[in-house]
Amino acid sequence: FDLLSPARAWCQAAAQKLPGGIGSKLCGRLVVEKKKTAIIYLLPALDGDLKTMTFLQEVVDILLAYITESFDRETKVIDFHYPNELLQRNNWELQDEPETLDDILISCRATLKYAIKTAHPRYFNQLSTGLDMVGLAADWLTSTANTNMFTYEVAPVFVLLEYVTLKKMREIIGWEDGRGDGIFSPGGAISNMYAMLLARFKMFPEVKEKGMSSVPRLAAFTSEHSHFSIKKGAAALGIGTESVICIKADESGKMIPADLERKILEAKQKGFVPFFVSATAGTTVYGAFDPLIAISDICKKYQVWFHVDGAWGGSLIMSRMHKWKLDGVERSVLKLTWNPHKMMAVPLQCSALLVREEGLMQNCNQMHACYLFQQDKHYDLSYDTGDKALQCGRHVDIFKLWLMWRAKGTIGFEAQIDKCLELSEYLYNKIKDREGYEMVFNGKPQHTNVCFWYLPPGMRYMEDKEEKKKRLHKVSICPHHVSFTRNKMAVL
Amino acid sequence: FDLLSPARAWCQAAAQKLPGGIGSKLCGRLVVEKKKTAIIYLLPALDGDLKTMTFLQEVVDILLAYITESFDRETKVIDFHYPNELLQRNNWELQDEPETLDDILISCRATLKYAIKTAHPRYFNQLSTGLDMVGLAADWLTSTANTNMFTYEVAPVFVLLEYVTLKKMREIIGWEDGRGDGIFSPGGAISNMYAMLLARFKMFPEVKEKGMSSVPRLAAFTSEHSHFSIKKGAAALGIGTESVICIKADESGKMIPADLERKILEAKQKGFVPFFVSATAGTTVYGAFDPLIAISDICKKYQVWFHVDGAWGGSLIMSRMHKWKLDGVERSVLKLTWNPHKMMAVPLQCSALLVREEGLMQNCNQMHACYLFQQDKHYDLSYDTGDKALQCGRHVDIFKLWLMWRAKGTIGFEAQIDKCLELSEYLYNKIKDREGYEMVFNGKPQHTNVCFWYLPPGMRYMEDKEEKKKRLHKVSICPHHVSFTRNKMAVL
Repeated sequence: FDLLSPARAWCQAAAQKLPGGIGSKLCGRLVVEKKKTAIIYLLPALDGDLKTMTFLQEVVDILLAYITESFDRETKVIDFHYPNELLQRNNWELQDEPETLDDILISCRATLKYAIKTAHPRYFNQLSTGLDMVGLAADWLTSTANTNMFTYEVAPVFVLLEYVTLKKMREIIGWEDGRGDGIFSPGGAISNMYAMLLARFKMFPEVKEKGMSSVPRLAAFTSEHSHFSIKKGAAALGIGTESVICIKADESGKMIPADLERKILEAKQKGFVPFFVSATAGTTVYGAFDPLIAISDICKKYQVWFHVDGAWGGSLIMSRMHKWKLDGVERSVLKLTWNPHKMMAVPLQCSALLVREEGLMQNCNQMHACYLFQQDKHYDLSYDTGDKALQCGRHVDIFKLWLMWRAKGTIGFEAQIDKCLELSEYLYNKIKDREGYEMVFNGKPQHTNVCFWYLPPGMRYMEDKEEKKKRLHKVSICPHHVSFTRNKMAVL
Repeated sequence: FDLLSPARAWCQAAAQKLPGGIGSKLCGRLVVEKKKTAIIYLLPALDGDLKTMTFLQEVVDILLAYITESFDRETKVIDFHYPNELLQRNNWELQDEPETLDDILISCRATLKYAIKTAHPRYFNQLSTGLDMVGLAADWLTSTANTNMFTYEVAPVFVLLEYVTLKKMREIIGWEDGRGDGIFSPGGAISNMYAMLLARFKMFPEVKEKGMSSVPRLAAFTSEHSHFSIKKGAAALGIGTESVICIKADESGKMIPADLERKILEAKQKGFVPFFVSATAGTTVYGAFDPLIAISDICKKYQVWFHVDGAWGGSLIMSRMHKWKLDGVERSVLKLTWNPHKMMAVPLQCSALLVREEGLMQNCNQMHACYLFQQDKHYDLSYDTGDKALQCGRHVDIFKLWLMWRAKGTIGFEAQIDKCLELSEYLYNKIKDREGYEMVFNGKPQHTNVCFWYLPPGMRYMEDKEEKKKRLHKVSICPHHVSFTRNKMAVL
């Protein structure tokens, strides 16, 4: 018993647990020939069960050890090497000949050795961090199920869970009976691109067939602090970045509604047709929430489609204490981007686009490919979600969110979000009067972003504000900001 | 020992194997309190190691049992229920209160119970099937690493592996020294959209800022058998589906070059500017390969950008026996879509866009977001791939392909592809003279698609071809086709 490897222990135990064939098959062949096990002996090889189970279990052992290490504060967050150096530290090349399973395990270890531990308590990077254990388990299951969201027949459960979850999200927004539509897409940038695409189609449905030449010159509006994906989307959709008009933000990063109205009028005078306003709920750097009610009033007045990019801040709607920051989202929004992979710490990627109008996505994107979306199936075809997407195949991103939601409950997400906001306020209070630090803007943070400048000693008492600003930008191009997305504390 | 659950056996063995803290910690607490284990005790809880390892191991046990079952020919491929029925067979709702870990395990089992077994030997669906064990292991590792492709600093190894793999793919295409660019994107539809976007930008770079109003009316060309994503892309990019001109295909589904030339001339006469030809290497239904050399000659003559959609058939370039079907791809292609998640059986999703010109993607898509793509980093910034993508965050799709490639070697992929093509020829020979079946087109299949009509007894000797065709379409809207993507055999 002393010499049992975890994999062999698993085999032995599995033999007692698993019903029928596989259990006894494993039990009967306990002596695992580990060295030089070639890939061809794995499943789907007829006799591949045992080798497969052993191999996968060894991979899992590596992963479990990595997870424990990742959460250990004493380990390094990253064993950093420059690209050229890293290329030379290991043989990463792809060759003609196959490797053994042992080599594959070595490759897995090497990959993790040089990976950055995103679950580490001291890991801070852009807007996603931590590793939720239920989310991880769900993602392992998703990989194992290895299917595609295009039709109900190839992903019955996942399509249903997407349906259930999107409905729940729409209920939380406050749309009547949770009615509407939506989709999980590969990231907030694509969700925002969908939003712009839908707004254009809603106003000018002929654009689908005839293109932009059938449409007057369009104008979209978003705050100067908004995410770059709005411009990127406009470039891709043939609208052009110059048609994205930036609205001034106030000192704390919120869009100024009066400037929006002024620029809508200006654009109209120049012959543009304003079609799309993207307000931001939680800007990337400041974490600011645009005033949604005032913006939606202006949108209504000028009949412009109103989108909220809540990729970062949308999750605050789960918190009874903080959801007022999104007031207005319920009564006027056409669409909302909401990325559970950020504030809700769902493994990457998980981004939802929620759409108020049923059928709009379908009409905008469908191409009726007969071999895929046959109209003579024996079930309710509204569950074949593929034709409303821009993608054909679509990765299953729903299960990790759904399973985490079951595990935490709505109140669990709420507690997690509240805690993160509490931590950012704690940091703000610690830093605002501290020697050598200067806040980027005054006032409590609205989201978990805490933005500050670090002032090197020689700059602390400079009088010339312009000169100071110039030199600060040499210390760092952007202001520092710390964002909390898990229950953890930044150490300054 | 009799009563050891796999999870407890693992703990015990791990204690002997894992170095330092975690091992002894696990060993010291072998009595696992399994019932009512709440989520809050999992990592990152300070004392969460043991519960986490136990929980994850239990999930892995469920997954391993599912895998074994999936490969067992005697099990059902799916326990099918209609959407409304499936909604009622289980409680899928999201609630306020958290569930216990035991409930979470029950949810995992229920999800798999109603999932379709895509790894099952008798599972056939659109263009992807099977579950590669090394690919699966790689995907589990990817989930565990939980990071994002936008910068080298958050995904050092994965960014390098993407670099290494894309270079290898370009070498295989035959581009000099493997030079060029590329990206892994969420599926072939998005890759094709990129291709169209790049072609437009290459011809009219001002479109990025000024939109389609600065550009003459464009025309794109693709075969009538091409994938619907070409039209979908044109609709999204503001080009319009009417600007996608369908070129006639011959009886076996290949684009007719003479018709392409005729329609390019026609479009020019009407004042359109031809900018993009998308040839298909492996059409979705027939598996036809467009004649790339002839098409590329026409593209050169009329200075139109030439793209090859090899989402389905691109992988044949790995086979010395079959790569002639892609002849022409090396000397003239601007871009190639190539989905290893199809023919190469990499878990979903894994789609590459390969671009010949370095810097083009960057210029087309970059938006210079300073908080993300700082220009003052201490490493070679060409490894920050985020700004050349349409996405901001991007899922790590590379590791599963890279690890499978290591495991199989180039010759392993070749053997797998050759075997699939051999199987389709076998099926073709079995079916072509069989009573009650009729081939959709004559001649050996070029790819693994074998297209046939099943003729019910009453229709077998019908003289009226039109009437027969009409009635056939009532049996099935599309012709049947069987595609092989793993070493398995269809049973008629």
